[in-house]
Amino acid sequence: MQNTPTSILDQVISPADMRHFSDAQLMQLSKEVRDEVISAVSETGGHLGSSLGVVELTVALHAVFNTPFDKIIWDVGHQCYPHKILTARRDRIRTLRQKDGLSGFTKRSESEYDPFGAAHSSTSISAALGFSIGRDMGLPTGDAIAVIGDGSISAGMAYEALNNAGAEGRRLFVILNDNEMSIAPPVGAMSSYLSRLYANEPLAKMKSLAEGFEAALPSPLRDGAKRARQLVTGIHGSGTLFEELGFEYVGPINGHDLSQLLPVLRAARARATGPVLIHACTVKGKGYAPAEQSADCYHGVSKFNVETGTQVKSKPNAPSYTSVFGKALTQEARHDPKIVGVTAAMPSGTGINILNDAFPARVFDVGIAEQHAVTFAAGMAASGLKPFCAIYSTFLQRGYDQIVHDVALQGLPVRFAIDRAGLVGADGATHAGAFDVAYLATLPGFTVMAASDEAELMHMVATAAAHDEGPISFRYPRGNGTGVLLPERGEPLEIGKGRIVSQGSDVAILSFGAHLEEAEQAAKQLEAYGISVTLADARFAKPLDTDLILQLVHHHEALITLEQGSVGGFGAMVLHHLAETGQLDRGVKIRTLTLPDRFIDQASPQEMYEDACLSASHIEAAILDLVQPAKNVLPLNSA
Amino acid sequence: MQNTPTSILDQVISPADMRHFSDAQLMQLSKEVRDEVISAVSETGGHLGSSLGVVELTVALHAVFNTPFDKIIWDVGHQCYPHKILTARRDRIRTLRQKDGLSGFTKRSESEYDPFGAAHSSTSISAALGFSIGRDMGLPTGDAIAVIGDGSISAGMAYEALNNAGAEGRRLFVILNDNEMSIAPPVGAMSSYLSRLYANEPLAKMKSLAEGFEAALPSPLRDGAKRARQLVTGIHGSGTLFEELGFEYVGPINGHDLSQLLPVLRAARARATGPVLIHACTVKGKGYAPAEQSADCYHGVSKFNVETGTQVKSKPNAPSYTSVFGKALTQEARHDPKIVGVTAAMPSGTGINILNDAFPARVFDVGIAEQHAVTFAAGMAASGLKPFCAIYSTFLQRGYDQIVHDVALQGLPVRFAIDRAGLVGADGATHAGAFDVAYLATLPGFTVMAASDEAELMHMVATAAAHDEGPISFRYPRGNGTGVLLPERGEPLEIGKGRIVSQGSDVAILSFGAHLEEAEQAAKQLEAYGISVTLADARFAKPLDTDLILQLVHHHEALITLEQGSVGGFGAMVLHHLAETGQLDRGVKIRTLTLPDRFIDQASPQEMYEDACLSASHIEAAILDLVQPAKNVLPLNSA
Repeated sequence: MQNTPTSILDQVISPADMRHFSDAQLMQLSKEVRDEVISAVSETGGHLGSSLGVVELTVALHAVFNTPFDKIIWDVGHQCYPHKILTARRDRIRTLRQKDGLSGFTKRSESEYDPFGAAHSSTSISAALGFSIGRDMGLPTGDAIAVIGDGSISAGMAYEALNNAGAEGRRLFVILNDNEMSIAPPVGAMSSYLSRLYANEPLAKMKSLAEGFEAALPSPLRDGAKRARQLVTGIHGSGTLFEELGFEYVGPINGHDLSQLLPVLRAARARATGPVLIHACTVKGKGYAPAEQSADCYHGVSKFNVETGTQVKSKPNAPSYTSVFGKALTQEARHDPKIVGVTAAMPSGTGINILNDAFPARVFDVGIAEQHAVTFAAGMAASGLKPFCAIYSTFLQRGYDQIVHDVALQGLPVRFAIDRAGLVGADGATHAGAFDVAYLATLPGFTVMAASDEAELMHMVATAAAHDEGPISFRYPRGNGTGVLLPERGEPLEIGKGRIVSQGSDVAILSFGAHLEEAEQAAKQLEAYGISVTLADARFAKPLDTDLILQLVHHHEALITLEQGSVGGFGAMVLHHLAETGQLDRGVKIRTLTLPDRFIDQASPQEMYEDACLSASHIEAAILDLVQPAKNVLPLNSA
Repeated sequence: MQNTPTSILDQVISPADMRHFSDAQLMQLSKEVRDEVISAVSETGGHLGSSLGVVELTVALHAVFNTPFDKIIWDVGHQCYPHKILTARRDRIRTLRQKDGLSGFTKRSESEYDPFGAAHSSTSISAALGFSIGRDMGLPTGDAIAVIGDGSISAGMAYEALNNAGAEGRRLFVILNDNEMSIAPPVGAMSSYLSRLYANEPLAKMKSLAEGFEAALPSPLRDGAKRARQLVTGIHGSGTLFEELGFEYVGPINGHDLSQLLPVLRAARARATGPVLIHACTVKGKGYAPAEQSADCYHGVSKFNVETGTQVKSKPNAPSYTSVFGKALTQEARHDPKIVGVTAAMPSGTGINILNDAFPARVFDVGIAEQHAVTFAAGMAASGLKPFCAIYSTFLQRGYDQIVHDVALQGLPVRFAIDRAGLVGADGATHAGAFDVAYLATLPGFTVMAASDEAELMHMVATAAAHDEGPISFRYPRGNGTGVLLPERGEPLEIGKGRIVSQGSDVAILSFGAHLEEAEQAAKQLEAYGISVTLADARFAKPLDTDLILQLVHHHEALITLEQGSVGGFGAMVLHHLAETGQLDRGVKIRTLTLPDRFIDQASPQEMYEDACLSASHIEAAILDLVQPAKNVLPLNSA
């Protein structure tokens, strides 16, 4: 049995099974878990690099702490594959990120070992402190352990949590998983501070936990630890930033070495009375050569060949919206030296890297710091620059107050390029760009656009570049465009004007954004029933093209609005307008097709829209429901 | 001329007039500005304490820097009264916070000396960095100086900005105005860190700017500075937190002593090449004994008697919503030990202090850190506690992503008590609670309530305490209740059920929240026209009371929805529902009365609603517009 490649792992149904293992067996277990992760992700794709970086940490945490009574809270949660393998989900690990499969992140509804789900960064310390309070108030929950990366800890929210946890002084563990590389190259002063710490004190340094810890350490570490501790003894104010904030600081230790991890975690668990930060250094992609050697450490990969590391990439038929945006912005920037790009740790994800290649001095990647990114851009706009702030829809939620208070209220011309609008596929509900239209179109003075294809996106980049009268946004989906012919350069659109895509006579579909394709398909299907559909592309949710809406209402039996977003967005703006102008008084057959009032689990985007009742056939059904009774039509070809 | 009490101040039309003054004259100017602030605020009410704390700093900044070419950015902006007096607004300083008067905050549209408006905290460093980039890219703007308090700098957003500014390394000034007391007693580890810094190094400490600075200082300071600098020389990693983040740190200095402020600012201006943080210690309420001696340092005051400091307080006819909430929550907490309170630096503003008086161990004030507050509460809820997260509507915007991602997506039963919903009066547009219904009712699984009076608020507190199935919120306005009889204790409402307040026959008003009073008044006025109005209190924006809506639509000629919020909120939910269920097909005379699509400047709340076209007579007019033509009615008493 010892000889099969997963003989130790096979014994682990749940973490309790690991707790009688010897340290040597835990080392073997780590090896087997790593191989299992590589093998699984080669079939599913996913966040390989982060997961490989925490294999030993995952094993050590579950071996030392009493999960699920103790709560491990993985920040972001994309590094949770080893955790899922060890917590009774190994049998489904090859369904990761697929329809009806395991989520690619931690998720409360999936397992009692996932006490707090994640996917956006920097939430773990706040949540862990919440659990600590619950424990201290007598609820049946044990220790709370937040595991957070060096990229995530630089966000303001993590700082707020450290600050509060330090002041609360409650027993709480924060593992700083310092892999020296988040998605993008690390930016910000915090990152260089961590590097300095690492460069200067390679071994464990500890203050109040110190003697106990040192005794627990293997002897080569013990001496280094003592030296490090002595270095700081008696020198006031010279602790680490974490100590300044009230944490006991332990580290840096080698996060791939169980002979360091296990004794440190055991000692911390045995002795901590207040908040403890353990600084573990890890390597993203650890133990899989192609990942370690790749520039992004296989942060997010497609299916791949385990032997060679070669990823299976499907050939796109059309350029991605992201690259079209990046190129269009670069083109505009060539014509206008005031254009600058701002992003928050997603330079390549947003295509801002393309602008960076051409004009590196005009690109500002502020790290995971959306709040700052938005107000920073507002400051730039106030100085006369033309900032394009490129942030995914779901992450822009972090900068909402700044959009209201610093941008909209002051009417500053910040341009928001909102990638990943609508449902995004394998990343699931946490990454859905569902709410941006609702939270932007309600703001006075905002101009809110959505691109129905990649050529439209180019026009909207040009529109935003030209629009200097106030804030403006344009949203577009994840993935590839429709394959339309692209112009040489985008042309500014008339603000607040939509367009008729094809003129029909019975029913009108007024589509906002990239669901126009589905509308076209539905229209085609409806031809078979003898129903003639007018297709219009609204382009603007704000200001609305009220002439276009009036025309559609007056010359059609029914009107459907369509958007890849929640209620309260484009459809609501149309309804408000119709109500306000008295057009509902005598009746308008109108339906607002939006995302449903529930979160949609991961699958392909198409499957997710199917689940959301927003596919072409749902649109078709909605229209048949409206006009079939009146017209009593039958499919032409059914006669 | 030297003998009049404002002989120096009278010479200052704009800051340029100060720049030939001697240091002694600037000291005299400070004295005169202080008296002017006290005198003005005694007539207008306002943020007295903060403004008195920065008199010398304001004089020094305008004397040393070349405003408005150089940009002073006041964080929060409520300390700007001395700044307004010195920047060509002295003639209007007695209109502060009044209708058509000066804003109580900095405001771009008001003066070129206000380069970036504020009112929410912690935005100044981000904005200042934006201006620095503009300058470095050749735009006609000079130095950027952010002035930020010790309370504001503890927010995550300020940390993100420091982190980014430190990494950028551009010339930029941050003045840390450390008054050792923000609105609430300072909380968090950062605050104690600052205190330690102050206790240990009372004089200027400087590293790379050091020799130059020292030479520029008056000799008693110079020696101290040299000693302080030597203390840190050669000791790696022992700089301040700000130095760790890449800033030059200068201080702490006495922020009321121009003989320290002027040379330090002059030296910094002459020599800085990168980001510099100047730590100035000030006293809130400085120079006005009643303020210095008061617990909150006259943070926000009503009109007062200058001699005695006695504030004019109008006698309320009814208890404030805030105190009713605080008492109701405390009552519920007595019955349920799992109930805890969370707020973000607004314990007395939200009434959470009342719970704190009864159960101090069950109240968590996390400081200015709304993002953390929300996810912290989510962690508590996940552990089994019942957190009430009490944050003003406008500030809850800071926690929007956390509400979506950590609360709603996980369906965690966090209770949101949303004070200051709707228009808030003298604090103006920046503090309006306009968007919370739109940004919450669009979230799957949320229950969204609004209280129409203070008894309803008690029921909603009880409802929230009892509702453990998912997130729930209730909003209520600033100010006093309507004076209704209060029950002994609130009773849980049936989720998703509104109530008929008075039954009429012609028109229905479906009101959500505290505007019910205006609706009642409008209904009464309409009686004179022979129009009979049904008044309904929706209580819930989500889930909607669809039976009630159906009934109102079917039995009335017209339906008005009413709310103290933006489009996309309650009215939009009603319209979506009517569209979806086909009720618009044959016509519904419906109007959704919401806040208009513009920001409303400060005045009394009543005047603001008048401006917003939401007064009782506007409601009356809207209804007359709908039913008069049909009925051809005339006022009964006009015959």
